[in-house]
Amino acid sequence: MKINKNYKNLNESYLFSTIKRKVREFSEQNPDKEVLKLGIGDVTLPLCDAVIEALHDAVEEMSKKETFKGYGPEQGYDFLKTAIQSYYKTRNVELDLNEIFISDGAKSDIGNILDLLDKENTVLIPDPVYPAYVDTNMMDGRKIVYIDANEENDFLPLPDESQKCDIIYICSPNNPTGAVYNREQLSKWVDYAIKNNALILFDSAYESFIDTEELPNSIYEIENARKCTIEICSFSKMAGFTGTRCGYTVIPKDLVFDDMSLNKMWLRRQTTKYNGVPYIVQKGAAAVFSEIGQKQIRENLNYYKQNAKIIADTLDKLNIKYTGGKHSPYIWMKCPNNMNSWDFFDMLLNKIAVVGTPGAGFGKNGENYFRLTSFNTKEKTTEAMERLYELLKNQFQHKGTVL
Amino acid sequence: MKINKNYKNLNESYLFSTIKRKVREFSEQNPDKEVLKLGIGDVTLPLCDAVIEALHDAVEEMSKKETFKGYGPEQGYDFLKTAIQSYYKTRNVELDLNEIFISDGAKSDIGNILDLLDKENTVLIPDPVYPAYVDTNMMDGRKIVYIDANEENDFLPLPDESQKCDIIYICSPNNPTGAVYNREQLSKWVDYAIKNNALILFDSAYESFIDTEELPNSIYEIENARKCTIEICSFSKMAGFTGTRCGYTVIPKDLVFDDMSLNKMWLRRQTTKYNGVPYIVQKGAAAVFSEIGQKQIRENLNYYKQNAKIIADTLDKLNIKYTGGKHSPYIWMKCPNNMNSWDFFDMLLNKIAVVGTPGAGFGKNGENYFRLTSFNTKEKTTEAMERLYELLKNQFQHKGTVL
Repeated sequence: MKINKNYKNLNESYLFSTIKRKVREFSEQNPDKEVLKLGIGDVTLPLCDAVIEALHDAVEEMSKKETFKGYGPEQGYDFLKTAIQSYYKTRNVELDLNEIFISDGAKSDIGNILDLLDKENTVLIPDPVYPAYVDTNMMDGRKIVYIDANEENDFLPLPDESQKCDIIYICSPNNPTGAVYNREQLSKWVDYAIKNNALILFDSAYESFIDTEELPNSIYEIENARKCTIEICSFSKMAGFTGTRCGYTVIPKDLVFDDMSLNKMWLRRQTTKYNGVPYIVQKGAAAVFSEIGQKQIRENLNYYKQNAKIIADTLDKLNIKYTGGKHSPYIWMKCPNNMNSWDFFDMLLNKIAVVGTPGAGFGKNGENYFRLTSFNTKEKTTEAMERLYELLKNQFQHKGTVL
Repeated sequence: MKINKNYKNLNESYLFSTIKRKVREFSEQNPDKEVLKLGIGDVTLPLCDAVIEALHDAVEEMSKKETFKGYGPEQGYDFLKTAIQSYYKTRNVELDLNEIFISDGAKSDIGNILDLLDKENTVLIPDPVYPAYVDTNMMDGRKIVYIDANEENDFLPLPDESQKCDIIYICSPNNPTGAVYNREQLSKWVDYAIKNNALILFDSAYESFIDTEELPNSIYEIENARKCTIEICSFSKMAGFTGTRCGYTVIPKDLVFDDMSLNKMWLRRQTTKYNGVPYIVQKGAAAVFSEIGQKQIRENLNYYKQNAKIIADTLDKLNIKYTGGKHSPYIWMKCPNNMNSWDFFDMLLNKIAVVGTPGAGFGKNGENYFRLTSFNTKEKTTEAMERLYELLKNQFQHKGTVL
C-alpha cells in the first residue's frame, strides 16, 4: 500500500505550539504575573439565549418518538437554508435554496471542496495567509503561487495580470490582517477570475464584523461573482459556534467548468462522504436568524468590536500603523522599530506578560508584524493595552520614530 | 480551472430514488392501503434518557461564560476517547488514547481516510457492497477489483491469494447481507493483508448488534490486526445517532507505510481540514458508555433485534434462505423462485404493500436477493411479516420448491 506522498512535503507548523511552550515557561518562572492573551482566535462569550433555547427544544424533540430525527439531508435542512437565503436577501443577493449547503464549519469545506478540483490547477494564495489554504493544497500536490499583501497595498493585493492561476483564495475581512476589500477591489478580482477561467474561493468567515454598508459582506454583491466564486462562511465568529460547529457554503449553479456543474459535483461529494450537521445544531443555527437571535448576537459582536477599538485606539495613540481593528476581530500591527515578529513576541511576553501572534507564522510578509485579537474580555483587553502603552511609550516614543 | 475528471465516471445511483417514486405512485393509486417500510436503514427509536440528559447539561454549559466551550481538539475530547478506550478493554483490546479519533460519523471518515492513500493503489471490494466504498474510490480514480460474496461462501468471502490489492474493505456485520465474520475468517484476512502489505479498512458500524462472544466485535481482537487495519465505527446504529452525528476511527500507531505513520498523517489531515465534533454531541456520546446509558441503549438494540427475529422466523417458516437476522439489523433473503430482485420488489409492493430494498442495488451478486431491515416498529414488522407469509405461502410453498 502506497501513501499519498504529498504529505511528506508538508511543513510542520510550530507557531501555536511554540507560543504555548513560551507562555508556559514564562508562567512557571513568573507565577505571580497574570498573562493576558490577545493571541487567541477563539470566541469567549457563551451562546446567546435564543440559540440555547433552540438547542434545548431540539434535544427534547430527539427524546420523543414522534419528533425524533434520524438521517437528515446531507446538504442541510430547509429551515436553516431558508433562513440563510433570507439573510442574503437583506444584501440584495438572491440565492436558490439548492445553492446553499450547510456544513460543520468553514474549515471542513475549505479543505473538502478541493476534492472537486484537478490536482494540475495552479493556486494563487495571498501572503500572509491562514495556513490551511496552503496545507490543503500541498496535500493534493497542487502548484502554489503567492501574491504579496504588504504595506504598499494596505494588505489588499489586486490581481497581477501577468500571474496565471486557476484557483484564487480571498479572505475578507482577512485573517490575519483584518483588511477588508471594497466593492471596486473585489470587482477587479471577479473580472480577473472570469478572464482567466479561474475559480475564486471566498472565505467570508468574518463578514459579520463589517459595520458599514460601504463594504460588501458577500462577494455575490459584486456583479458576475456568481460565475466564478464559491463563498464559504461560518457561524463560528458570527454567533460563537467555534465549539458548536456549523457553517455554510454557497455554490452557484452558474459555476460550470469542463461542462460539469460544481454545484452538482459538491452535492454528489457530500451525499457520498458526509451525513450532514446534527439536527440539534442546525436548529440552534437557525435561531441565530430570528429577530431576537440577531439582536443577541449583535450584542456579542459589539462586545468584541469594542475590544478591537480599545486596541486600535491604543495603537493610534502610539502612532503605530495597523490594519483591521474596524470590521474585523483582528488587529495587524507593525512591530515598532521594524522589530522581528518573534523578538516582539518575546519582548511583550517577558516585559508586560501580554501574548499575541507573531506575523511570521502567517508567511514571509508577516515578518515584522504582529496579530492581536479582540476575543478576550474587555477588562483584560484594556489592561493589556495599558501595559502595551506604558511599555512602548517609554521604549520607543521618546525617540520620535515609532515605525 | 480544471475539475477532478473522475467525477465524470461516477454512476448515478437511482436505487433509493426509484424506490421512493414507486412507493409514491403506489400510494397515490391505493390511498387506502398502509405501506409498511422495511427498506429503511435508519433508526426510529428516540435517543435514550441518559443521552438526552447529557445533551441538555452540555447545552447549559454552553450558555455560561464559565463553562462555555470554544474550539475543542480536532481529534475529540479525552472524556469521550477514554470512554471508548474502556469499551475496547471489555474485549481485551488495548488502545492508546491517541489511536482514537472522534468523528461525525463513519461515512465521513470512510470517505476522508482516502486522502492519505495514493491514487495508484488497487482496491478490493466485496460484491454486494455499501455503495460509498466504490464511489469514494472512483472519485479518486483508483482501480477497483471485486471479490464475490455469494451463497457458496455464505456471503463471507475469504482472501484469494491470486488476487493482488493494496486496500481491502471489510464490513462485519455486513451491510447489506448481515453476515458476520468469525475470528478464524478474519484472521485469514489479516494474514493476507500483512503478506501483501495491504491496508484493511474495517467498517464495524453494526458491531453492537453482535450478541455472542463467539464473534468478534472489533477486528483488533484478531492477532496482528493492529499492523494492517483501520477500524471505523459509529454511534448511529449503536445509540440512534443517525441525526445526531458521532462516530470514531481507530488508527493504530503500528500502521506505517512508506516510513509514514498513518496515525500522524490522519492527525495532520484532521487538524487541517476539520474542527471536531460539537462539544454538546460528544457529551451525549460519552453518556452512551455510562452504566445507565449502556442499559438503555441495549434495550433499544434488543427492540430492533426482536424485529429481526420476527423477520427471520417468518423466513424460516417459509423455508427461504437468508443471511443476517442474528447479530445484525439486516436480513438478506433469497428471492423465491430465483426472482429478479426488482420483480420481487414490485410484487411485494403491489400485492402486500411491503417495501424492502432490491439486492441488485448493492452489486451484481445481489441480483436475486432482497434486503429487509429491523428498524420499523414491532407492530409494523409483525404485520409486514404476516402479509409476506400469506403471500408466499400461497404463491410458492404449495409448489414444494421455495428456493
